[in-house]
This record gives sequence, structure tokens and C-alpha cells, in this order.
Amino acid sequence: MPSPSRSIAIDFDKIREAHERIRARIHRTPVLTSSRLNEASPATAGLFFKCENFQKIGAFKARGATNAVFVLDEATARRGVATHSSGNHGTALARAAKLRGIPAHIVMPSNSAKVKIRAVESYGAHIVFCEPTENARETTCAEVIKKTDATLIHSFENENVIAGQGTAVVELLEDVPDLDLVICPVGGGGLLSGTAIAAKSMRPKIKVIAVEPENADDAAQSFRAGRRIVTKKKFTIADGLRTNVGERTFPIIQHYVDDIVTVSEEAIVSAMRTIWETMKIVVEPSAAIPYAAIQESKIDIRGKRIGIILTGGNVDLDALPWMSRR
Amino acid sequence: MPSPSRSIAIDFDKIREAHERIRARIHRTPVLTSSRLNEASPATAGLFFKCENFQKIGAFKARGATNAVFVLDEATARRGVATHSSGNHGTALARAAKLRGIPAHIVMPSNSAKVKIRAVESYGAHIVFCEPTENARETTCAEVIKKTDATLIHSFENENVIAGQGTAVVELLEDVPDLDLVICPVGGGGLLSGTAIAAKSMRPKIKVIAVEPENADDAAQSFRAGRRIVTKKKFTIADGLRTNVGERTFPIIQHYVDDIVTVSEEAIVSAMRTIWETMKIVVEPSAAIPYAAIQESKIDIRGKRIGIILTGGNVDLDALPWMSRR
Repeated sequence: MPSPSRSIAIDFDKIREAHERIRARIHRTPVLTSSRLNEASPATAGLFFKCENFQKIGAFKARGATNAVFVLDEATARRGVATHSSGNHGTALARAAKLRGIPAHIVMPSNSAKVKIRAVESYGAHIVFCEPTENARETTCAEVIKKTDATLIHSFENENVIAGQGTAVVELLEDVPDLDLVICPVGGGGLLSGTAIAAKSMRPKIKVIAVEPENADDAAQSFRAGRRIVTKKKFTIADGLRTNVGERTFPIIQHYVDDIVTVSEEAIVSAMRTIWETMKIVVEPSAAIPYAAIQESKIDIRGKRIGIILTGGNVDLDALPWMSRR
Repeated sequence: MPSPSRSIAIDFDKIREAHERIRARIHRTPVLTSSRLNEASPATAGLFFKCENFQKIGAFKARGATNAVFVLDEATARRGVATHSSGNHGTALARAAKLRGIPAHIVMPSNSAKVKIRAVESYGAHIVFCEPTENARETTCAEVIKKTDATLIHSFENENVIAGQGTAVVELLEDVPDLDLVICPVGGGGLLSGTAIAAKSMRPKIKVIAVEPENADDAAQSFRAGRRIVTKKKFTIADGLRTNVGERTFPIIQHYVDDIVTVSEEAIVSAMRTIWETMKIVVEPSAAIPYAAIQESKIDIRGKRIGIILTGGNVDLDALPWMSRR
């Protein structure tokens, strides 16, 4: 896999173009509110949840992957696409490739959740298993690409992916234009980059704050240090956020994002459970962390109308986090 | 508690009036579709889920209780309302009473789920615990009423409750007018009665089919026998549907409903899990039984556009049915 360049060309026009490109191939997901959750945080002027858990494949990742696949020229597309992913991006790429009728090669760690493997298979993608290390994933993916001449669609170090992810907040701001603050999780930083560019372009005074698990706080550390720091991570239940922030995404984040805060594992589980019980929707741990930051008072919410991106809803119902804690 | 009369005066006008009365005090819940679930049942012309799990208090019961409380004249209302309920009706009545600013007395079995007790308490209702038998519930409720002069709002043997429950299908048919079939659960029969009256009034050729757990199939047996049969019940996970069909609701059901089918416990759990995993929404076991009937091929769905009422989403996340089966 080629080392990504530090410079990345992406602006709001790319996000608008992405939206036109993918619009008919994804869901326009609803924005939900909850009077109970508003009452629980009376300091806010309202919480607005963009429900990407209802998105195709159950996560916002459908946006970026669809854009990255459909932007390819015909000859390139025919050679197929490839990625390594233990999570939603693999499924999203498999689906986008199926929609376009091209091959997809998904490198997955051998210990991936069965439900994720089945999801990728259901779209007819070719799965290549590898050891569950970052190095093995990248090496295996490079081999697959060498063999097949497929195009690498990285899950966040890719401008078309970032542009696609930015379309969620475009819809959110179309539906609720007068937001003061948008909160979104940060893992590799694809969603956060696209969100920050789009939000600040549509509404220059809006604040964008990212949330990260304390146990995987490389983005928060990097943000404070002013340079990208790769950390050794403890376990976090928020499996979508275990990745290090990207070399390409970090400069965008430095430029556009107002703050990055962290939350405890307990807060993630509590927020996830609160959302399930109160809103009656299924969200994955990674999706719960913006609300966890509100519950843990990590963000100044006073008087603000707040948009929250609920990133996905793919969980193993046999292994819910509150089960193992009993 | 007075024995309910066999005749009950309710027509579509009552349901329309109920809708006007409660409209501003309840949610207009969304109608969701799922391309995955449509693909899983290719014989249908589409499934349309009316999401009463997103309703106030997490269940359609908010409709009937709100109507029954707000229809009372001022003098009667001031004396308060009372009911016995181990489930959503108690919470719904507590909420409606709080909205109107009148006392509510809720008789609950001593073994009620803590989450349900907390929900009733959160609306400031007066809870009276009793032994967990039908007889104790009725006796205790009668005592409370004797002492307080409160008005009994039975969870289904009450025309204003039935009229309120009928408003869910009114909204469903406003949103999706060309349905061929509506499927809804039957327990006491309040929702089913209101649904059948409203649906057949708005769209005379529509079919209304009810679903009941095999383990609590008194309504199905009664429907086939042509007379109300009270059965001894086995345990069903669908806790909202353990009640016998009512003396007042059964004649309505006989008159308006096309069929009552039953489903196994395994089908209920499987359908519930499928809805959670696919639609990313939280529904309670009782709400899953219409889809269970589709999964178990208990209903002829060929070529039909089908409305399904997802009745509620109040579950104990520490005791999900697939946990105990492992």
C-alpha cells in the first residue's frame, strides 16, 4: 500500500459532487429528537440525532465507499476495488462494488465477527483472511492489489471516501440549519474530516467537536500536541474507533476541528444503553460516544442546538457490553 | 370493578375525535420500510412498519390512555384515574394524568419489572402493589377506586381507550393509503378493535389479520369457536399479550377482523431479533409477532402491500430473550 501523501485536495465542492453522485444509492437518513434526552440535558437548546444507523449497511460508511466506487472511470472500475477492514467499510465497499457490478476484494482479520463476515459475503465480495494485525492487513491487501490490479479504497485515507462521509452533515444541516455545534466520533478521521469541511463551509460559525475513547486517544493527543502521534492503545468497546487518526486526515482535523475530547468506557456503555432505552434505536458503541461526552459533561453545551451523528448500528446482539459486566 | 357490558358503542367518528383530541399530546410516529425485509419476503408488494415503539412512553398505549383521560369532564377528571397494569398502559395512564394535572393510581403486581415501576413513578403516579394474580389486581383496583372515587380506565375494556388505539392505523393509512392488509397483535384486543374499525372504515376492502402467541391463543380459539373462550395459558415471552381477549372487544373483533393466526415462541424471538438487526430499532417481543407470522408463513402475503403495527419498544436490556437461550 503506498504511503499516503500529507497533502490532500478536498473542498466543499467535492462533498457536494459526492452527494449528487451517491444520493440515489444511499438512504437519506432521518434526524430524530427525543424529548426525554432533551430534558436530561436541560442546558442545551436541543439535541438532533442524524441516524446513520439506519443507513444502507447500517453505517455512514456506505456514503464514502459508494462515492469512491462510482467516481472511478469505467476501465479502472472494471479491475475491481480492494480494501482491508474488520468493520463497516468492508461491507460498504462490497455493497458499492455490487451496485456497480465490479469485483471487490476485502481483506479481513481472521478473528472478525461472524456477522461482519456474513455481511461482506452477502454482497458477493471476495474475502481474504489475514492475521489480526495492522501490518498483516496492509501486507495482505497490497498482495491482493498486486495480483488483481484492483484499486485500493482506503477506509479514510482517500479523498473520495472523505467527501462521501461529509454528506451526512450536509443532510443534517439541510434539515436543521441553525445548529451551533456538531459532535462526531473520531477513529481514522474520515467522517470527522468530511464533517468539519462541510459544516464549516455551510455554516462558518458552527463548532465541530470530536469525541474519542480515552483508551484510544491518539487523535486527542495529536490534536493537543499539534503533530500526529501514534499511540499504543488499550482495549475499547468502541471497535470502530481503535484506528489511529490518518496522516491525510489529521491536517484537515487540525485546520477545521475546534476540539477533541475523550470519554471513559463506562460512559460509552452507559450512553449506548441510554440511547437504546430512550430512543428505541440500535446504535453501536462507537456511535454512542458523542452522547457519552454530553453525559460526562466533557463539552460545553449551554444554550446550543447540537447535531450528533449516530454513526452506525451494527452490533453483535449476543455480546452486548452490559452483558459482560454483570 | 364492574363487569363490562357486552355491547360497546364505538364507531369511526369516535376514533377521528380521539385523534383530534390527542394529536398534540402524542407523537405522529414514522412509517419505516426495509429493503432487506422486503427482499426477505419477495412475495409481498412491500412491508410498512408503523413505529409505535417511538411513541411517547415507548408504546401505542399512550394513545388510548391519553384519549381516555382528556375526554373526562373537569369534575370527573379532578377525582383522578386508576387502573391495574403490569405494563405499558400503567405508564401511559400515569403520563396522561400528569399532562392533565390529575392524580393517577396504578395497581401493579409486586413482581413487576423495575423499569416499569420506575417509568410509572417518573410521571408522579401513586403506585399500589398487589399479589401477581388477575384476581388480586382487580380487587385491589376496586378498593383504590372505592377509596379515592377515581375513574377506572381499563387497558382495553373501555371505548375511549379503544378509540385512541385506533388512531395509529389512521396515521398509517394517511401515510400509505393503498395497503391491502394490516397485521397487528392481539392481547386484550383494544388495539385490534380500534385498528379494525378504523381500517375498514377508511378502506373497506382492506384485510385485518391479528396474531397471537401459540402459548396464549385464547383469541384465536375464541375466533374459531365463535364465542369467547378463556384459556389457561402457557408462558409466552410476549408479555404484552398474556391477557385474555376482552368481553367488550371480542364482539368487535368477531365483526371486523378477517383472521387470527398464532406463532411459536421461537418465531417471536427470531422475528424480534431480525427487526433489531435489520431495521436497527428496539421492539418488544409483543411487537415482533406480526413479522413472526410472516416469517413462519402463517399469512398469505402474496402481492399484498402490508401495514404492520410495531406496538412498542419497552424491553429489559438485561434480559433479552436470546440471552436466556444460550
